[in-house]
Amino acid sequence: MTFTWLENGHVASPAGWRASTLACGIRYVGRDDLALVVSKRPCASAALFTTNLVKAAPVVYDQALIKRNPHGLQALVVSSGNANACTGADGDAAVVSMARATEQALDLPEDAAFVMSTGVIGMPMPVEKITRSIAEAARNLDAAYGPKAAQAIMTTDTRPKQCAVRIDLPSGAQVHIGGTAKGSGMIHPNMATMLGVITSDTVIMPAALDAALRYAVDRSFHCISVDGDTSTNDTLLAMANGVAETPVIDDITSPDGQAFLAGLTAVCQYLAKEVVRDGEGANRFVTIHVREAASDADAHRAAMAIARSPLVKTALFGADPNWGRILCATGYSEAQFDPHQVVLHLNGIKVIEGGLPIDFNEQIAHQAIDQPEVTIEAALGAGNGSATAWTCDFSYEYVRINAEYRT
Amino acid sequence: MTFTWLENGHVASPAGWRASTLACGIRYVGRDDLALVVSKRPCASAALFTTNLVKAAPVVYDQALIKRNPHGLQALVVSSGNANACTGADGDAAVVSMARATEQALDLPEDAAFVMSTGVIGMPMPVEKITRSIAEAARNLDAAYGPKAAQAIMTTDTRPKQCAVRIDLPSGAQVHIGGTAKGSGMIHPNMATMLGVITSDTVIMPAALDAALRYAVDRSFHCISVDGDTSTNDTLLAMANGVAETPVIDDITSPDGQAFLAGLTAVCQYLAKEVVRDGEGANRFVTIHVREAASDADAHRAAMAIARSPLVKTALFGADPNWGRILCATGYSEAQFDPHQVVLHLNGIKVIEGGLPIDFNEQIAHQAIDQPEVTIEAALGAGNGSATAWTCDFSYEYVRINAEYRT
Repeated sequence: MTFTWLENGHVASPAGWRASTLACGIRYVGRDDLALVVSKRPCASAALFTTNLVKAAPVVYDQALIKRNPHGLQALVVSSGNANACTGADGDAAVVSMARATEQALDLPEDAAFVMSTGVIGMPMPVEKITRSIAEAARNLDAAYGPKAAQAIMTTDTRPKQCAVRIDLPSGAQVHIGGTAKGSGMIHPNMATMLGVITSDTVIMPAALDAALRYAVDRSFHCISVDGDTSTNDTLLAMANGVAETPVIDDITSPDGQAFLAGLTAVCQYLAKEVVRDGEGANRFVTIHVREAASDADAHRAAMAIARSPLVKTALFGADPNWGRILCATGYSEAQFDPHQVVLHLNGIKVIEGGLPIDFNEQIAHQAIDQPEVTIEAALGAGNGSATAWTCDFSYEYVRINAEYRT
Repeated sequence: MTFTWLENGHVASPAGWRASTLACGIRYVGRDDLALVVSKRPCASAALFTTNLVKAAPVVYDQALIKRNPHGLQALVVSSGNANACTGADGDAAVVSMARATEQALDLPEDAAFVMSTGVIGMPMPVEKITRSIAEAARNLDAAYGPKAAQAIMTTDTRPKQCAVRIDLPSGAQVHIGGTAKGSGMIHPNMATMLGVITSDTVIMPAALDAALRYAVDRSFHCISVDGDTSTNDTLLAMANGVAETPVIDDITSPDGQAFLAGLTAVCQYLAKEVVRDGEGANRFVTIHVREAASDADAHRAAMAIARSPLVKTALFGADPNWGRILCATGYSEAQFDPHQVVLHLNGIKVIEGGLPIDFNEQIAHQAIDQPEVTIEAALGAGNGSATAWTCDFSYEYVRINAEYRT
């Protein structure tokens, strides 16, 4: 392991980062709903965005911004309570106002500020309230305020999500990666944007950072399911300010690049799993390992089909060792395999072998699953592909009825 | 309109059809759980099956049967309570036993009987109980017992689903199509097989019947969503015994073929919509029309994305005119369109024009949606493609919380 978790690490843990928050009353009352995350130097940046055809105004703005200025971002402004989606020309203008207000307040050049919003769709942005608050927040930046930023970006999240790692580069020096994210609750989907921010003091080229971010997201945020809908605002931004003054990473296959990649993947996985753990009403955190698939892509398909299935998730809530639903989801995942080769374990208890139920003790299996952490292991017997996905159970009252059906 | 609905029509309404049922105690106590549907003559037959890689034993048997004997089927046996899925070699043998028992009891040649099962996965079939009951049921066939068959195939359905039409063929004679189906309840998914049976007295070639069935299903059963999971047992069978002695239909583009197609599509749509109406806990029946899509296929993608979205369905439960969720689902449907061209109506009230919310009265819109029938009309402004889908709201307690979120 080339990285170490920082105790109480956050988005401003890496060198040269500060944050600030303010309650500007966009929608929430009596809590911070605006966050600034600011670097002392321009950053190499990379970002991933929602694939929804209907994109919020900040997503459209940021997609162009990151293309024209991948070396010059220095600040992020995030507002919560209003998504600035389906808001037309006024919404587009609001994003520009937020960006300009941030740049002016911090004395940064144009195009230095990245903008994120999360909240209700189709409501006009209270843009003057926000820009006034940006100016005020900019006067109160501190490296200790990273945790406040993690709080301010929340909507229906029940707790902030943040972490940081120190990486010992093979070339000798140390760098840091910090991050925060907000997730989506099953039952408050209109506020369900996934936003993520990754900060670092590493010296890295934007193209290498982009490659690293895609690698890490394929193994973290692309492997989780809370509900099935893809929001208009989902955005993940990574910024590295180079303050550590380490040798530049321009290739993620180099030894330093590999160490950075490992740290970034760990941070993204931590945040992604936190989003799942905070899925509204979630009682169990579920890890799904698919092995022996025809390919890694097939393994991912099968793992995500299981992770998304309402039927599997309701069974897990009831601690029902309902292997039939898991096999059924694997069967429609479009992964190629022979059902007669499948072996399935639930928290270590073998329930299917050769595609058929084995004579396991239902009561023991129920008790084994009735835990806060559940692991599903499916071996498909079709090759060497593997993948992991994370999900939570469905634990609401209507689901209770479903989960109890077999008892 | 070339067809007329028969009052209290059922699966044995067409000439030359009889049914019989019996309580054999497969899983349920005190209700019929076995049905025979029998023709006086061998039938032209066609069937569609689940696409799940994990297929129940009767599905595997029937897929081969319909290929080798598309002219010779004469009986259908259906058991409810046990799906005969993931039951291994014993399950395969159970299907053969059910088929042979049906053929012998009815004095039919081998391969005349089609077998369907629905119910719990992974439990051994009580095959002797079933075959004994088949022999008994075969002694009690009657054309008046069609409605009893619709009852006996139910699992978690709250009511039987059945209908029949009389078709006035352009060539002068009359034929009939009857049908029954059982659906899937959201909260009892392990029993969630969709089974459907279509009977007719029409003289039609199997290839033409197959083409007609695919056409009708693309406009009915493929356009509904209750939950997202595809079962191991889904089967739809169409059998035409030719007892009407009308001119043979060997081409669905002929005038008689077109009339038959219209009647078959109407029967399939009726049954598919009944499955949706009986989705567990459904309070509203929702029709989704997508127009002005780039193609019919794109319109179908958009309509089904809306129909499947838990977020749309929970909003509908709360009678929330939540156009944002509908636009969001359309956006990730993979249909191609410009969000700025979208016009959206909810039960006749325009809520989006040019991709932006218009200033509708929320209270009036809420009242307009708070009805047992809701119609969503989305015009994408991208072409001439159109499609219709049907779904129900999500009305459970956890959903209540979600639906009330905005109020």
